[in-house]
Amino acid sequence: MSEPLAPGATIGILGGGQLGRMLSVAASRLGFACHIFDPGPNPPAAQVAARLTTAAYDDTAALAAFARSVDVITYEFENIPAAALDALEALAPVRPNRRALAVSQDRLDEKTFLRGLGLTTAPFAAIGDLAELHKTLETIAPPAILKTRRLGYDGKGQARITAADDAATALAAMNGAPAILEGFVDFEREISVIGARGTDGQIACYDPGENTHRDGILHQTTVPARISRAQATDAVLIAAKVLNALDYVGVLGVELFVTPAGLVVNEIAPRVHNSGHWTQNGCLIDQFEQHIRAVAGWPLGDATRHADIEMTNLIGDDIARALDLARDPAAALHLYGKSQTRPDRKMGHVNRLIAPGK
Amino acid sequence: MSEPLAPGATIGILGGGQLGRMLSVAASRLGFACHIFDPGPNPPAAQVAARLTTAAYDDTAALAAFARSVDVITYEFENIPAAALDALEALAPVRPNRRALAVSQDRLDEKTFLRGLGLTTAPFAAIGDLAELHKTLETIAPPAILKTRRLGYDGKGQARITAADDAATALAAMNGAPAILEGFVDFEREISVIGARGTDGQIACYDPGENTHRDGILHQTTVPARISRAQATDAVLIAAKVLNALDYVGVLGVELFVTPAGLVVNEIAPRVHNSGHWTQNGCLIDQFEQHIRAVAGWPLGDATRHADIEMTNLIGDDIARALDLARDPAAALHLYGKSQTRPDRKMGHVNRLIAPGK
Repeated sequence: MSEPLAPGATIGILGGGQLGRMLSVAASRLGFACHIFDPGPNPPAAQVAARLTTAAYDDTAALAAFARSVDVITYEFENIPAAALDALEALAPVRPNRRALAVSQDRLDEKTFLRGLGLTTAPFAAIGDLAELHKTLETIAPPAILKTRRLGYDGKGQARITAADDAATALAAMNGAPAILEGFVDFEREISVIGARGTDGQIACYDPGENTHRDGILHQTTVPARISRAQATDAVLIAAKVLNALDYVGVLGVELFVTPAGLVVNEIAPRVHNSGHWTQNGCLIDQFEQHIRAVAGWPLGDATRHADIEMTNLIGDDIARALDLARDPAAALHLYGKSQTRPDRKMGHVNRLIAPGK
Repeated sequence: MSEPLAPGATIGILGGGQLGRMLSVAASRLGFACHIFDPGPNPPAAQVAARLTTAAYDDTAALAAFARSVDVITYEFENIPAAALDALEALAPVRPNRRALAVSQDRLDEKTFLRGLGLTTAPFAAIGDLAELHKTLETIAPPAILKTRRLGYDGKGQARITAADDAATALAAMNGAPAILEGFVDFEREISVIGARGTDGQIACYDPGENTHRDGILHQTTVPARISRAQATDAVLIAAKVLNALDYVGVLGVELFVTPAGLVVNEIAPRVHNSGHWTQNGCLIDQFEQHIRAVAGWPLGDATRHADIEMTNLIGDDIARALDLARDPAAALHLYGKSQTRPDRKMGHVNRLIAPGK
């Protein structure tokens, strides 16, 4: 276990979106200042951070200056280039570690890693060319989904294959990027577990939430999920297994499919996760503070849930409903301060109390 | 009722201490950016604000530029010079209004105002000179306390009079400032009510908390206070009376003495209040967001309490206990990011859950 950061220390955050913004706010509660690194103009996190560096992820001089100005580095997204990590790691600890990043940056590596832990995933295979895709579709029968191995999120870089005839079109949609074919999982529901692991190996997991999507984007997370106690325990044990296997420090999101045959791991995200936003109004210590505690080498907080909550994302024009939502005495708003609204852009979320809890 | 601010609007905050810091964080949840005005170096609020102006309160050019850059102005402390208010009010709305500030800046005006509302205060009288002090001590008998009319907080600018012989020394301690003599109130306990009023006149009050002090500084606030249901109702009605009388917009703190003869108003503070910090972990909408909602012309949030909480201030070296406190699963820390520790400086507070609530 490394030395805990003293209040007043500075935490560097790669990425200045809404996750970086809520991490910065959580860090302030523990007396930490945050320095945001983001390539874009007006990142939402900069409005609540002590310092902002605007530079590209291949600007090694800017990365080095950033790393020298902070006590620890964390990130809000998993697609950080390896060369950027090289530059940063030489000067400051990066948490979670690069193994967690590497595994989650590549769908093939991720599924191989998960299967290596004895966990169940969708059937999958690497696809090099059209002949290989056709051959693989004989064992991973359609419907299936072809995905780029890297840089995919919210349904991007994916092509559905409902019959063998779709193969060529699907492969063309990958634009030559290395691809992975995944078989469909016939699931009852999708849940996710937000787990955390400290520098001392301590683990804390929040109750699993149940997720629904719209147009490939998370729409709602509801806690508690409609699962049995045994399924909830399984979900938490899976998260703990992944956290320990990666010698992980920080918060990790694990998405799982609930099937009659048991839980199937969909994917892992080495960061705070949209499906954990309910913790802001359902727990004494939310996922953002939990992540900051972990990367700062502090003791983890209690992850006990004190309320039943439905978290709904506000996408695009949903933001226009903010004032109406503010009138609901059971609703807590969390808006991201984004100056421009786009149809598929996450503009905020609302946590609505369903019941005072268990 | 004025037009509510749209998300993305900017709120100006006079004062960059811990209250400004927590207001800025709360504003970020509603998508607002904050601009802090503070004369000192490294104000804690600047670490979580979009913009900082460092200037004195008599720098009218800086005040004007600040006012032009924001959509509404609020403040974290009541001792704002009248000339500064003149400069600001010409350019942007200031909430709460200057009547609330004027009344709370002057102990004599404050007590006169409260008495005018039919509320009970300690016996009091203005004191011009030693002869007047001696004469007044015949009706307001010692023990009594002599206070400067203006600029007092946390026990500063006060002198206790236990016998008529102390009069000259006590008056000398006022350094020639206009003074007020207050009789002691024999109270069972001190409570406070945090109330809020919106631009539409809507009022919401949090449950009264019970306060204890150490060395003249708030030490703990505990909710619920050990008072009867009737006393709790009286306290809330007193706060509502003050809010309406001042046509108030924002959060107001009202300190009350509980006596066998009923509630006695000690003082009012036209801002978020240290004794309301428990709301951060006891309510869906805390006093900071409530204040932001009010000054932004938004609907007030629900003030229902969902837990029993003991808030303890971390003063001076208490901050060294932060890591130990973080190990308590019932404790939520709120540190202020102050770089320098001084013996009587408020460095943070901890909200400790006593019970999951009613």
